[in-house]
Amino acid sequence: MFGDNLERIVQGIEKNYEADEIFFTKPGRAFPNRAAIKGVLKTLRRVIFPGYFGEEMLSAQTSPSYFIGQTLIEVERVLREQIILALTYMSEDHDQDGDGCDCTSEAIRERTAEICTRFFDELPNIQRVLLTDVQAIYDGDPAAGSKEEIIFSYPGLYAIYVHRVAHVLHKEGVPVIPRIMSELAHSGTGIDIAPGATVGEYFCIDHGTGVVIGETTIIGDHVKLYQGVTLGALSTRGGQRLSGVRRHPTIEDNVTIYSNASVLGGETVIGEGSCIAGSTFVTSSVPPHSRVSVKAQEITVRQPGERD
Amino acid sequence: MFGDNLERIVQGIEKNYEADEIFFTKPGRAFPNRAAIKGVLKTLRRVIFPGYFGEEMLSAQTSPSYFIGQTLIEVERVLREQIILALTYMSEDHDQDGDGCDCTSEAIRERTAEICTRFFDELPNIQRVLLTDVQAIYDGDPAAGSKEEIIFSYPGLYAIYVHRVAHVLHKEGVPVIPRIMSELAHSGTGIDIAPGATVGEYFCIDHGTGVVIGETTIIGDHVKLYQGVTLGALSTRGGQRLSGVRRHPTIEDNVTIYSNASVLGGETVIGEGSCIAGSTFVTSSVPPHSRVSVKAQEITVRQPGERD
Amino acid sequence: MFGDNLERIVQGIEKNYEADEIFFTKPGRAFPNRAAIKGVLKTLRRVIFPGYFGEEMLSAQTSPSYFIGQTLIEVERVLREQIILALTYMSEDHDQDGDGCDCTSEAIRERTAEICTRFFDELPNIQRVLLTDVQAIYDGDPAAGSKEEIIFSYPGLYAIYVHRVAHVLHKEGVPVIPRIMSELAHSGTGIDIAPGATVGEYFCIDHGTGVVIGETTIIGDHVKLYQGVTLGALSTRGGQRLSGVRRHPTIEDNVTIYSNASVLGGETVIGEGSCIAGSTFVTSSVPPHSRVSVKAQEITVRQPGERD
Repeated sequence: MFGDNLERIVQGIEKNYEADEIFFTKPGRAFPNRAAIKGVLKTLRRVIFPGYFGEEMLSAQTSPSYFIGQTLIEVERVLREQIILALTYMSEDHDQDGDGCDCTSEAIRERTAEICTRFFDELPNIQRVLLTDVQAIYDGDPAAGSKEEIIFSYPGLYAIYVHRVAHVLHKEGVPVIPRIMSELAHSGTGIDIAPGATVGEYFCIDHGTGVVIGETTIIGDHVKLYQGVTLGALSTRGGQRLSGVRRHPTIEDNVTIYSNASVLGGETVIGEGSCIAGSTFVTSSVPPHSRVSVKAQEITVRQPGERD
Repeated sequence: MFGDNLERIVQGIEKNYEADEIFFTKPGRAFPNRAAIKGVLKTLRRVIFPGYFGEEMLSAQTSPSYFIGQTLIEVERVLREQIILALTYMSEDHDQDGDGCDCTSEAIRERTAEICTRFFDELPNIQRVLLTDVQAIYDGDPAAGSKEEIIFSYPGLYAIYVHRVAHVLHKEGVPVIPRIMSELAHSGTGIDIAPGATVGEYFCIDHGTGVVIGETTIIGDHVKLYQGVTLGALSTRGGQRLSGVRRHPTIEDNVTIYSNASVLGGETVIGEGSCIAGSTFVTSSVPPHSRVSVKAQEITVRQPGERD
Repeated sequence: MFGDNLERIVQGIEKNYEADEIFFTKPGRAFPNRAAIKGVLKTLRRVIFPGYFGEEMLSAQTSPSYFIGQTLIEVERVLREQIILALTYMSEDHDQDGDGCDCTSEAIRERTAEICTRFFDELPNIQRVLLTDVQAIYDGDPAAGSKEEIIFSYPGLYAIYVHRVAHVLHKEGVPVIPRIMSELAHSGTGIDIAPGATVGEYFCIDHGTGVVIGETTIIGDHVKLYQGVTLGALSTRGGQRLSGVRRHPTIEDNVTIYSNASVLGGETVIGEGSCIAGSTFVTSSVPPHSRVSVKAQEITVRQPGERD
């Protein structure tokens, strides 16, 4: 029976293909490859935290420079290839925007080389900042047995690692790849940080499931977020017309935001040193050193026999 | 020491096996295989979104019909096998229900063939509707750089893809497999859609972590949900006695429900065009075009020195 | 260009390595291996739920004792190796605490052997309790088609399986490994149970995404939690100074806590038989058989034309 209908089914699917341009790659073009991008994140992590996710144990006796150099050469080759694919694939769309982008194969290769240069130049700094994040998580979590435990297994650290990598590529204007990276982290941790978000040093996300940090959010240093915190937009019913518009909040230095709180809106600024209680819903700015809480939620406690 | 105790440990585990019938497969029966079911989802996705998750790049020059036909033949064989296993395994339980189900091996094979026929007949339509979902997500998210980005990496699209596949199998009465599928999506996205839920076209889930959509939910067209939204039951303390009873809400066309809102109850209807604000808790119906919000949460903002 | 800068980049990364002791393993030491620990969880699950996650179909005809014995011998070897690595790696830190821990290689091997003996002695009991969890989930979820479906795919069961294993190792003082285990479960399910938490029998987590159960939580028997429930601390700004201090609540027998409720604080006790409504925020104790709900959230429903 299935066999009898196969031709009709195939035709139905073919018809859908034809109806939507997203299915047909332009000649000589191909999509970037998710597995390759996942591989870049895996390999970079081995350079940044050697020994934790691979066999490369460091010791005071031997220089790690050969391992670092060799690994970076490999990862650069893969990343460069993927950026070329992404830029090539999206190049026509850029032309449609009339931004005058030079999209010859040669120009794309040159632009990619520059992006890679700047990205890898940034790598020691990404690593340095990640070490401040490890410190912040350790200082903030009484249940953390050691920094090693945090590097091995804390989802907050993994999400911020991926974000710091994706954010550099996002700033360089690389299409598609930063989002693929951030969604890989989202899938593994439940923490959704848009690649465009700006995040300071000593950043700590505890537990993390359900955290959403929108694209135009700006976060200072020494900020701590708990599970379920949304740093979001007041409304996105404007859809694509809002692309690029500031619509997410500013969180200044030394702010703590407890679980399931929502802070919304592009003009909302949480002043430095403030503390936002759990489950609050904040849509306007608060001055520095504020303590924001919900006026005692009126809870009803009934005993058996009392009116239900 | 471990070795000395091994016999006792083995006996303890054997005793647990014997105490529960779920451990012993009936002769000639076997469980369905999760990896095979995961493979079905992976392969079907390559047919529905060719080039995104495999090597099969389409071009205007060559017909994709061979690729589609060959891939569907393969995936049908695996899915058929798994459905036979699931129906065979659960068949005795069905008999116990006294539903007169004919459970001979021959009858199961015939029923499976019919299910597969109807499932694959539905496939072009599933694909067509998924393209409306891609459109809805693109239109609704200012941060989405392109439709390609959405197909590659948006968890909301992946969850609804899996749901649309699982829902057809659920309607055909296939046991176990639809739930395995929906939990694979849940695990990867944090979005938990019961296979029984009915979902219209142009469906958009943004961010998605923590979304729960219950089994008897009915959702219209052009509905948008944000992270943490629960479409749930008022109480399930009735347990298995509530199986099949309508206990989740109806969401009509063009409704938007913001983050962490809960809409509960089988008699709750959110009228078309309504908008439910974030963190609200709705347990009764609202008429069309309502804007539902919590009466301004009273927030206390204290400065240092003020009474704590 | 990248090539020209490589030496500088390598030096920058080397400098970061040198600045932090967490990068250099002490001579003769190595980190535990996440993949091996993941393998332990996978293999143990095959013993506890035979046939569901491997090929080992049981039948009433043949004794499963050979399969159990052989598999336990293999898994014990891997687990023992990993515990030795973890204890050895962390041993110097323990010395720094001045706890007089005997850290010779021989002493660590002996301690590991004792830990493994006690762990595997506990295994039949872990399995027995997990069967009560399966029963509780089945009884509590009208959408559960069968117990088989629960074992195959319910995230709540998987999270509690991993917790019951990790908790025994945590009680034995094994460093790093229990947390790696709990974060593997967290990543797959969105359910974050600290290895230190004490959880009774017949435990049910429904949907589960966003659930957080803190390290010093105590949970009785027949407790049911829904998605997004936090059993947390009132504040952890004390950081590492709070390590070991009781800071999470006690949930007595037969308590149900609905979605997105937060119960916080080390002195908070939810009396037996109580029911906590969704989205409540509870920071003080309630007596047995209480029904806790938020005093009707004042919802505003506006129609088009009404003042916005």
